[in-house]
Amino acid sequence: ASFSSSSSSTLLFRQLFEKESSTYTYLLADASHPQKPALLIDPVDRTVDRDLSLIEQLGLKLVYAMNTHVHADHVTGTGLIKSKVPDVKSVISKASGATADLYVEPGDKVYFGNLFLEIRATPGHTKGCVTYVTGDTPGQPRMAFTGDTLLIRGCGRTDFQGGSSEQLYESVHSQIFTLPKNTLIFPAHDYKGFTVSTVGEEMQYNPRLTKDVETFKNIMANLNLSYPKMIDVAVPANMVCGIQSKTS
Amino acid sequence: ASFSSSSSSTLLFRQLFEKESSTYTYLLADASHPQKPALLIDPVDRTVDRDLSLIEQLGLKLVYAMNTHVHADHVTGTGLIKSKVPDVKSVISKASGATADLYVEPGDKVYFGNLFLEIRATPGHTKGCVTYVTGDTPGQPRMAFTGDTLLIRGCGRTDFQGGSSEQLYESVHSQIFTLPKNTLIFPAHDYKGFTVSTVGEEMQYNPRLTKDVETFKNIMANLNLSYPKMIDVAVPANMVCGIQSKTS
Ligand SMILES: [Fe+2]
Ligand SMILES: [Fe+2]
Repeated sequence: ASFSSSSSSTLLFRQLFEKESSTYTYLLADASHPQKPALLIDPVDRTVDRDLSLIEQLGLKLVYAMNTHVHADHVTGTGLIKSKVPDVKSVISKASGATADLYVEPGDKVYFGNLFLEIRATPGHTKGCVTYVTGDTPGQPRMAFTGDTLLIRGCGRTDFQGGSSEQLYESVHSQIFTLPKNTLIFPAHDYKGFTVSTVGEEMQYNPRLTKDVETFKNIMANLNLSYPKMIDVAVPANMVCGIQSKTS
Repeated sequence: ASFSSSSSSTLLFRQLFEKESSTYTYLLADASHPQKPALLIDPVDRTVDRDLSLIEQLGLKLVYAMNTHVHADHVTGTGLIKSKVPDVKSVISKASGATADLYVEPGDKVYFGNLFLEIRATPGHTKGCVTYVTGDTPGQPRMAFTGDTLLIRGCGRTDFQGGSSEQLYESVHSQIFTLPKNTLIFPAHDYKGFTVSTVGEEMQYNPRLTKDVETFKNIMANLNLSYPKMIDVAVPANMVCGIQSKTS
């Protein structure tokens, strides 16, 4: 889908789904820039070939492969992408502690052509989680790529990887619910077949984050979730962009 | 997501996914109309509660539950929806031979508020397949809900339910590929995690429909697909909106 903007930049946008881990990968590009620079948010190793083939067919130049955080449920595609398209730069937050080509901090902007994503720190699911937010284009809703911080009618667990339910609550309320209500919420996962939500909808209907902080902390402390199947493989791999050096 | 239009109507749009059958259901509404009239395209029986709950939260009034065709891989949600929301009217093409409250024919328009879907006959996957196309709004790409006629980089099988590969080829080329190239393609299924394509993309990259008609017929005749698991349950049920009378 493409959305025209008044600044004569055209955002090309695609949402892509990886079924095994129910992960959404997002492709964004400045389609009106001569080079059509593009970025991927939260690519998955298993779907890298699909994503790169789409990027090639659309005539885009992939510049960044970014993660919202160090994932525990799948191996990121960033390392594999770099091995196939050497000019691509991997991006993650400085606070994640992971290795990448480019580290982002709150308030930074990552430009692709004349468009950009602004970085907001939203720790709580992990200590290094960030939300990527598109710029303000008159007549178009903003988009927030919230990772596992805010899911549609849900949120990520807070019992691993430096997680903190209190911090997640504060992150969502101060960094996401302060965006315009028509801001589109694009999470890293959905398990019920939803593809998008809005800030206004989650402020009204999120069954966890509409509660007060103490109730929220109680909910999160009593989820009784099982140990994530892939965490012991995925987290060490994702700390180094998904590809571990053979000598380590 | 909502898209503003110059006629002061605002299309509210949601794509919803049912994982077991990899089916997409689409929710459209005129969000600027006082009643917020809405319709669902290709609802699935298993996800009716999810869809109705979303419709309620968004404050929409569901008017139509429509199918692109008589599905063979899942039971439609239309009958169940009617039993839960009695005012809803089921919609299917006259050519399908199925029972519904409202039968549509090529060129008809189904209005929801000030917005509408235009019906295009696209037989070939089944004899009664139609494509629903949104109206022309300046500055916004049109949307085509293609059912199983045109899938992203694929198409529906043509070996059951009055299917014909020659007819499918003709339908896609005369009814879909004649739409503006930036028209968004929203299919009834995707098995690789794609959520949307465009007419221009499929005209250039669809591995089947870019071929000449004889090559296409050959491809379709040699797919060696297995007998659809659910066809003997789903088709009779879907001929009557998913709910068979207890006395029959
Ligand atoms: Fe995560
Ligand atoms: Fe079908």
